[in-house]
Amino acid sequence: MNAEELFRNIQRKKSFLCVGLDTEYKKIPRMLLDREYPIFEFNKHIIDATADLVVAYKPNLALYESMGAAGSIRLEMTVTYIRQNHPDIFIIADAKRGDIGNTSRLYSRAYFKTLDCDAITLSPYMGHDSISPFLEVDDRWVILLALTSNEGSADFQQVELKGGSRLYEHVITTSATWGTVNNTMYVIGATKATELKHIRELIPEHFLLVPGVGSQGGSLYDVVENGMNDRCGLLVNASRSIIYADGTNKFEEAAREQASILQKQMEKALKDRKLI
Amino acid sequence: MNAEELFRNIQRKKSFLCVGLDTEYKKIPRMLLDREYPIFEFNKHIIDATADLVVAYKPNLALYESMGAAGSIRLEMTVTYIRQNHPDIFIIADAKRGDIGNTSRLYSRAYFKTLDCDAITLSPYMGHDSISPFLEVDDRWVILLALTSNEGSADFQQVELKGGSRLYEHVITTSATWGTVNNTMYVIGATKATELKHIRELIPEHFLLVPGVGSQGGSLYDVVENGMNDRCGLLVNASRSIIYADGTNKFEEAAREQASILQKQMEKALKDRKLI
Repeated sequence: MNAEELFRNIQRKKSFLCVGLDTEYKKIPRMLLDREYPIFEFNKHIIDATADLVVAYKPNLALYESMGAAGSIRLEMTVTYIRQNHPDIFIIADAKRGDIGNTSRLYSRAYFKTLDCDAITLSPYMGHDSISPFLEVDDRWVILLALTSNEGSADFQQVELKGGSRLYEHVITTSATWGTVNNTMYVIGATKATELKHIRELIPEHFLLVPGVGSQGGSLYDVVENGMNDRCGLLVNASRSIIYADGTNKFEEAAREQASILQKQMEKALKDRKLI
Repeated sequence: MNAEELFRNIQRKKSFLCVGLDTEYKKIPRMLLDREYPIFEFNKHIIDATADLVVAYKPNLALYESMGAAGSIRLEMTVTYIRQNHPDIFIIADAKRGDIGNTSRLYSRAYFKTLDCDAITLSPYMGHDSISPFLEVDDRWVILLALTSNEGSADFQQVELKGGSRLYEHVITTSATWGTVNNTMYVIGATKATELKHIRELIPEHFLLVPGVGSQGGSLYDVVENGMNDRCGLLVNASRSIIYADGTNKFEEAAREQASILQKQMEKALKDRKLI
């Protein structure tokens, strides 16, 4: 899927919502616990309840890795289920990997082939040769950590470089030359509205993946105001506020309701800017 | 295992060698391919052939993840085999992870509990709250990427900050306050001899994990000369030059021979500095 196809999906679904499938065993409704694969069953129900309202799902791999090989199997089942039943969905492996040359190539195989994801999140710390192997695969995306929403983003991402720019700005402007707007996105936390406006000036055309709306307190209005471009240019992620909206046997309806609230706000934002 | 115990293992074995278990299916001897678990069989043979010459093994997770759930199982088998048969060995999950708070906690569970590793490599880009959950687990270690041996280390790690220091120096001095010399190490590439000397001045007591000796061209002599401290303070990693020393049914002897060459050089270095 290239940027144009992603934008067409956004127009068709009137949504740029990404739902984080950060599924923890201890948080899923008790009624699912006697199934053979409770984690997968939960994901399946959440996906079927929300797929028409979202353009992307983003499983965070930590949740699955904490279960060992069993988690890998549930992740594979989830990705395969999305691919087979909702083929228009953009799937992001939230892996935050980053290793060199040959090893990167194996991670690329792991997430773009073994697991058929559209995109992977990566950490930029090791530089260009840790990223380029992922950019060599057609129609797959790298989503680089740039400015995250956590407190620790101040430690290094926002440190001032000689010449006055911040590290995250240098990461963005440097790495933007490695790929194209059709294979590179950036993670920008939703709590960083002021910086988002500035980042949009640095990279007017790139898609941004924006987590932190919902549980983490970021405002969708601010994100749209500062980050939207003429092809939308945004994937806004919400995880816990949607998937754990309700812990009873009404969890699917509750998840759909929460996703729907965000989708309606997104539809309005797209209409206001005449993108649909 | 704390720093003192690790040093005692180094003294007893007269070695600070770490062997990278970066096992690829297509590179293992053909005679193993008809076994049920060729990757595990290969690791098992390499481990048994070298365990008395090394203090640590370091599986790079990319190699296992590229196989999906099957890879997770082989990794678990390998770690369990080391734990049961060579209990004095320090096991490093070369994961290069880095995510925030709750997610870091799950990665910590994945690698310190589900998989019983002593240490995990992490990327510092997301800052303190991406690292601290790992530091809360007793007797387990964080190994932070600081200055790596690849070309791309120049892109961000070596960028100059306002005030004149390099990013990797800022990463080291900042993160050294988060943990202690008993739970924090740093990855410093063996090709960076000049910088290693300087890093040793910044953090005289911390252990450094130094990959890049062997296939990547770093010199053990330079690493010792610039990086050794009065408790050794070094784990030097070699991967391909040992595990793929020979592709025939003599692969174990060849691996042992290569490991032995490095161990003897290490023994001499430890004796020269009166550490054994």
